[in-house]
Amino acid sequence: LAAGDAEGVIELAGALHESDLGALLVALDSDQRLRLVELMGPHFDFAALTEIDANIRDEILEELPNRAVAEGVRELESDDAVTLLEDLEPEDQAEILGALPPIDRAQLQRSLDYPEHSAGRLMQTTFVTAPPYWTAGQAIDVMRDADEADLPDSFFEIFIVDPAHRLLGTLFLDTLLRARSTTLLQDIMSSDRRRVEVTEDQEDVARVFERYNLVSVAVVDEGERLVGVITIDDVVDVIQEEADANLKALGGVSESEELSDTVWWTTKSRFVWLFVNLITAFVASAVLGLFEGSLQKMVALAVLAPIVASQGGNAATQTMTVVVRALATRELSHSNATRVLWREIFVGALNGAAFGVLTGVVAGYWFGLAGIGVVIALAMLTNLVAGALGGILIPRILDHFDIDPAVSSSAFVTTVTDVVGYGSFLGIATLWFSLG
Amino acid sequence: LAAGDAEGVIELAGALHESDLGALLVALDSDQRLRLVELMGPHFDFAALTEIDANIRDEILEELPNRAVAEGVRELESDDAVTLLEDLEPEDQAEILGALPPIDRAQLQRSLDYPEHSAGRLMQTTFVTAPPYWTAGQAIDVMRDADEADLPDSFFEIFIVDPAHRLLGTLFLDTLLRARSTTLLQDIMSSDRRRVEVTEDQEDVARVFERYNLVSVAVVDEGERLVGVITIDDVVDVIQEEADANLKALGGVSESEELSDTVWWTTKSRFVWLFVNLITAFVASAVLGLFEGSLQKMVALAVLAPIVASQGGNAATQTMTVVVRALATRELSHSNATRVLWREIFVGALNGAAFGVLTGVVAGYWFGLAGIGVVIALAMLTNLVAGALGGILIPRILDHFDIDPAVSSSAFVTTVTDVVGYGSFLGIATLWFSLG
Repeated sequence: LAAGDAEGVIELAGALHESDLGALLVALDSDQRLRLVELMGPHFDFAALTEIDANIRDEILEELPNRAVAEGVRELESDDAVTLLEDLEPEDQAEILGALPPIDRAQLQRSLDYPEHSAGRLMQTTFVTAPPYWTAGQAIDVMRDADEADLPDSFFEIFIVDPAHRLLGTLFLDTLLRARSTTLLQDIMSSDRRRVEVTEDQEDVARVFERYNLVSVAVVDEGERLVGVITIDDVVDVIQEEADANLKALGGVSESEELSDTVWWTTKSRFVWLFVNLITAFVASAVLGLFEGSLQKMVALAVLAPIVASQGGNAATQTMTVVVRALATRELSHSNATRVLWREIFVGALNGAAFGVLTGVVAGYWFGLAGIGVVIALAMLTNLVAGALGGILIPRILDHFDIDPAVSSSAFVTTVTDVVGYGSFLGIATLWFSLG
Repeated sequence: LAAGDAEGVIELAGALHESDLGALLVALDSDQRLRLVELMGPHFDFAALTEIDANIRDEILEELPNRAVAEGVRELESDDAVTLLEDLEPEDQAEILGALPPIDRAQLQRSLDYPEHSAGRLMQTTFVTAPPYWTAGQAIDVMRDADEADLPDSFFEIFIVDPAHRLLGTLFLDTLLRARSTTLLQDIMSSDRRRVEVTEDQEDVARVFERYNLVSVAVVDEGERLVGVITIDDVVDVIQEEADANLKALGGVSESEELSDTVWWTTKSRFVWLFVNLITAFVASAVLGLFEGSLQKMVALAVLAPIVASQGGNAATQTMTVVVRALATRELSHSNATRVLWREIFVGALNGAAFGVLTGVVAGYWFGLAGIGVVIALAMLTNLVAGALGGILIPRILDHFDIDPAVSSSAFVTTVTDVVGYGSFLGIATLWFSLG
């Protein structure tokens, strides 16, 4: 690569699968990446760029001349082309689109006009259709004689449409192959015709795939006309992204954070969450501050209070994790909400009692004061039940108001368990030992 | 249903997709579930049971007579049959297998003999093979004339094998359809022949699917002989399970916890994690206890210490979340480990400085003592850098020793930030104000 041996590079990298070529790009330095793409010239498979993380992709695309990108994009399936173009600067996007043949340009432009994260962005616009009155033999002959460019790179089903391009049914290739050649397509097509709307959110599309174990699904517009097809490989990426987003949100990290982000960007994006947490922490400390007098008189309380708060926080996080996940997968609904609420309350109470006794005994021995054991036991029970309530109700309330519970629940939940933890422990202690 | 109107029930529920029938079962009470299955008799599609959570599935299967289950299992694809049988009691499993025709029984038994979570458990054992010297036309004719029972319910590719059943290549149905009927299969098959070993872990199988955007993959035994095929719909479930497991592990919840678990089971399973956390909390409190003298002299320290610990814990959780996820997806490797480590340290230092100043100012004003602001600022900086180090090194060390970092990192990481948080704040304070 350093020697600029184009032929050698093409020979080595040209045979790679797009994913492996992508992995190679990621492993290189920024300068080398560009050098590789330039050396490979027309032999570079732009599909590799759909396999790598968005920062690196955009960096490469911005450095490359728009003309070269347009050449590369021409060779791609429409859904991959959209992935490449969607994050570019509007001027670059326009210039690349301008360099494409009119039909490709119109199709891509239409896909890019759909909202981000919609089925329209995800779909491929090349697909195979047939009228219902064709026979199986006819359909096979037509495909055999079709121009390569009119067929998608690979497909699993053909769509049966009426003259207005409205979807009547779908037909898997294996069904087509098994049929007598004189059979009419309408007699073997599956007419349950599951489909998604072009404006539907990609997460809802993913849910349809998961639920019905689909491999591809037809995308229709408001007029029920077939406009595209979404295949499972794109949905697998959506499922991964969604799981990632959930995990990161619960960990207080921005959904779009990537390992390749810079220090500055990462610092800024994490600052927000830490700032929210700082306010939470000051609220909790303010509660401690209310009992300054009691803390002064009995310093053991200051040593033990964090245990109650932390145990409550962790129990609440357990509940919250389960609830946030169940809300995301729609497993938690009206039909089981009450049952799950009661279950969490009982679990909180049982573990609260168990850890109350445990902590009470240890704390009582540690400070040689049975009373402090009783106080911490009562506070622990209170806080674990409060944690259970907070862990389930806060995500559900946020979800009700269409706020993503994964992103925003944990700050609120921790506030509850810190405030209840410190408040109940120091409150009960102040009464018990008449510290007031 | 209550009226026992079998015909009515069959008419209503018989037309449902297996997923919807599954959802219906979940929504019913336990008694009604069994009643529904019994009323539907041979019209009940056992595939619905593969769509619901394991507790409910096993409950239904245990209540049903083994003979009825055997009848139902006969109709299923082999991978679905394995899902149904794998968690049953050994005696029930044996009895059901015994009631099956010998060929089915032998196949199922072989699948069940593969280790849990292996490719062998996931695969379907019915697939279509052809020798390389057949022509495209011949292959289509053979499939057309094949007995329905010899073909899988649906398939996307056929496998080209030699006489010893070793895999030579694969052929997608769309390629087959597009080929001239006189073309030899060996000339159109794809011979990069991606495949997985039958003993491979299902997560590695999922990774292969994701990386190469596959729809199905051949499964081979040690002798390179084709033994099964895994399709993407099963892999989507694996990907979901894996993401779920990661999320739950970080939230301190057992991977196998389901919304339908009982209070008692849930309490026990969450107890373990809370117990580990309790020990952590006591360690942190012991550090506080070391400075009892200082706390006594200056109660403001007791009020402020939790802020330092909590802010460090949250920053460390951010780092840990990113690292655990990157380890799971193999995005974090030797090639970028050092760069990511330095990035996290810098991010920790920058946010540590920012929050140090912010907290210092607020704390200084609150207690009317500039010194306390300086002390908390220094402690905050120290703890956020320590959190970054802990958040990245602990998961990597655990991963190195083949311990799942998602499950065990957070207890260790929190211990680090609590101990460093309390220790640095109270240590610096003790020196600054000469409280010793």
